[in-house]
Formats: sequence, C-alpha cells, structure tokens
Amino acid sequence: MPMAPLAVPFEVRAAIEDLYARYVACVDSGTFDAWPDFFTETCLYKLQARENFERSLPLALLSFESRAMLKDRVFGITQTLYHQPYYQRHLVSGFLMAARDDGSYAVEANYAVFRTKQGALTDVLNTGRYLDIVAEEEGMLRFRQKLCVYDSELVPNSIIYPI
Amino acid sequence: MPMAPLAVPFEVRAAIEDLYARYVACVDSGTFDAWPDFFTETCLYKLQARENFERSLPLALLSFESRAMLKDRVFGITQTLYHQPYYQRHLVSGFLMAARDDGSYAVEANYAVFRTKQGALTDVLNTGRYLDIVAEEEGMLRFRQKLCVYDSELVPNSIIYPI
Amino acid sequence: MPMAPLAVPFEVRAAIEDLYARYVACVDSGTFDAWPDFFTETCLYKLQARENFERSLPLALLSFESRAMLKDRVFGITQTLYHQPYYQRHLVSGFLMAARDDGSYAVEANYAVFRTKQGALTDVLNTGRYLDIVAEEEGMLRFRQKLCVYDSELVPNSIIYPI
Repeated sequence: MPMAPLAVPFEVRAAIEDLYARYVACVDSGTFDAWPDFFTETCLYKLQARENFERSLPLALLSFESRAMLKDRVFGITQTLYHQPYYQRHLVSGFLMAARDDGSYAVEANYAVFRTKQGALTDVLNTGRYLDIVAEEEGMLRFRQKLCVYDSELVPNSIIYPI
Repeated sequence: MPMAPLAVPFEVRAAIEDLYARYVACVDSGTFDAWPDFFTETCLYKLQARENFERSLPLALLSFESRAMLKDRVFGITQTLYHQPYYQRHLVSGFLMAARDDGSYAVEANYAVFRTKQGALTDVLNTGRYLDIVAEEEGMLRFRQKLCVYDSELVPNSIIYPI
Repeated sequence: MPMAPLAVPFEVRAAIEDLYARYVACVDSGTFDAWPDFFTETCLYKLQARENFERSLPLALLSFESRAMLKDRVFGITQTLYHQPYYQRHLVSGFLMAARDDGSYAVEANYAVFRTKQGALTDVLNTGRYLDIVAEEEGMLRFRQKLCVYDSELVPNSIIYPI
C-alpha cells in the first residue's frame, strides 16, 4: 500500500517529539531555571487568545523575544510575582510537522494543561494549540518560536508558569 | 532484546497517526467544509454512548453512512442548526492498530474533547474511544468507519461539531 | 541536520508505547482480570501524592509488590470493595525513555484520567506522572515498576480502578 511521503524524516520527528517531552517534563516539574534553555537566543514566546490570533489582532497576554527576557520571567515567577503556587500537568498530542526552507521546522500540536492548587481538585487550566518553530542552535533542537494560542480568554490571568 | 513484531509497518503507523493529527486540526479549527473528505465515499460516522455500545443496543446519537450525509451535516452545522458557538480541542492517545484482510486497518485510540464557550472557562465536553477503520481511497488514507464511543450519556445533546 | 542519538532504539520505543496503549485499553475497558499480567511477577505498583514523593516521604495511597497482590486487588475491585461504578478514560503523552544497565527501561510520561459516573458529566479524576520501569519477562514487556505520582491529594479516596 503506497503511502504519501512524510514531510519530515523519521529521526527528526522523533527528536522533535523528544524536545516536547523534555519541555513538558521541565515546566511540569517546576524546574523553571532550565526553561529558557529550550529556546534559541533570539526567539518568540507568546501566549495569545485564539480570538485575537484568528482576527490577526496584536494583543497578547505575554510576549517575550529573547532568552534573556525568558530568564527575566523566570526570576519573576520564582522571586517576585505574588501568586498561589500550583502544580501543572501538560498533555500534548496531534503533532503536525513541516520542513522550512531555512532548515528549521514548523510544528503544530494540541495541548491541555491541568492545574492542581494545594488542597484542591485538579481542573483544566488552559487548552490550545502550539504554533511553533523548532531549529538547531548550539548543537540542540530549540524553540525559535513557541506561540501558544489558547481557547479561553477567561483563564489566563492566573497563568503564572510556562505553557 | 527480542521484540514482538508490530502488526502494522512503521510507515503505515506514521501515516495513520498523521491522518488523526490532520483530522483533529480540521475539526478543532472549525474548517468543517474539509471534514467529509477525511472519509471514504461510503462510510460510517457514528456517535454512540458506551452503555449502548457495550450492550450491543442499536441506539446512537448520530449515525451517517456516506460522505454525502456528512456534507449534509456540515450544512446543518454551518447554516441551519441553531446553537451557541464554541471552540473545541481534541487530545488523542494510545493508538492500537491492526491490519485487516482487505488491506484496511482497524485503529483504536482514546480521545478527550474540551469545549470553550465564549466568555467561559474550558471544560471537558466528551471523552471516549475511537473504534475506526482506515483505508486508502482516491490516493489517500481515509476513515471508512469512525465510531466514537463516548463515556457520558449526559453531554451529547450539546455536541454540535464533529468528534 | 545532525540529531542527538536517541537513547532507546526505535523498535523498543514503539513496543513500549504499544505496552502503554494496551495497558490503558485494559484498565479503561474494565477488564481488570487482565491487569496483573501487565506486571512482572515481582513488581511495584504504587500510587503516591506528588507532595510526598517530592519530599521523599514514604506514605502512599496504594503500594503492591507482586503480581499476586495485584490479583488480590482485582478481587477487591470486582468482588468486595463497595463503590459506585464509574468509567475511566486515560490519556498519556510525553514519553521519555532511557535504557538501564540491567536491560530494562526507565519510562516516564504524563497522564490524565477522566471519570464518568453513571448519569453524570465527565470530570478529571486524576493527573500525574508515571515513573516506570519496563522489562521483558516471560517473552513480553511488562511493568517491573509503575509509580503513579499524582498531583492532587484530594481525589484519591475515590480511586478504585487501576491508574
């Protein structure tokens, strides 16, 4: 039975899925200091409501453009932001990947993040779609872009940790 | 370390997982016009409560038997059905696949669909199991059968969009 | 583009993911009699709150150390434990695997379990992380260890079926 050739070689697919698995393990275990290293030096990490994204409106909840800004965010999360701590738990599925002309990869996937506050039941914190660009830099695959387009405009005020 | 041979060749597995990823991207992005093309000309798309399925009772919430009926459903969704719009978000995992004698593939997987109404928090719309048959037709893998066996008999009245 | 070598050969990865898919299909379909066979004769199945796990505290909700103890648990679930039946539905993603010196594999993944009580909506029963060891025994891959570290200490009183 003939199969359409997959746009991205198998080894690359596996390495990219591994990148997401390590990313999720990092942010769910609360080891936020390691989070910026998942990104290239110049990058885009953006949290944007689906409604704004689909209308091409610029407003976003968070938008960081370099690893240095991500490190600043980590400092905020761990040192200065006043918030009630919570556990988070990511599930990611439905990867679609395509090679780009510059050697990087466009990667999309659905995600759901569950939140557990101390002494409380687990609930759905945030669902949405990753619209990412993955590239090799300094010998590792990293996110050049991680655009998290989330479904509900109601929750994000309480999103403290990385999605 | 010896491994049991997998019933379905790797390239086919990858192509089938890709089919699901594109299917989910289609129905979650609300591009319902493209939905019927994921099915063969003659097909079965059925939404059935687990309770009825396990007792072999015939009652199903929805049951369509051709791509033409699916197109009719799309017309209903987009033009005539009165409903409050919502975003949906699928997660699918735990694929089990087996080759069938006629060259098609039996595919099972768990799914969860999250729903976000305008101005509301995200909640769990529907969870269940796909019991599907995938076959090549007109040069592409398509669903000859997509049987969505859902866990809760309470929610489906509000299921408008494809699962 | 060079890729870091994956720690676990592809065929083993596929066989391990297949093990999880069959495990989930088993416990979600309620065929609990088949559940102990997913484990090695001597094994560890443990449900522990994340808070205790991260502090290295010993307290766990459940802890079984052999297939015989798991069979005893199944007897409890199906014959003696008084409980309101429910359907459960697992999603698992983000596999990280590493080969161990003794030929077994360390496997981690995130999971979410949804619960549907009769006549009720589906809700989130339990989320957490599997910290497992998979090994071949009697010709099959089985769990030598399945440590389910769950996020919320509030839910587990009502966890009857295997996670």
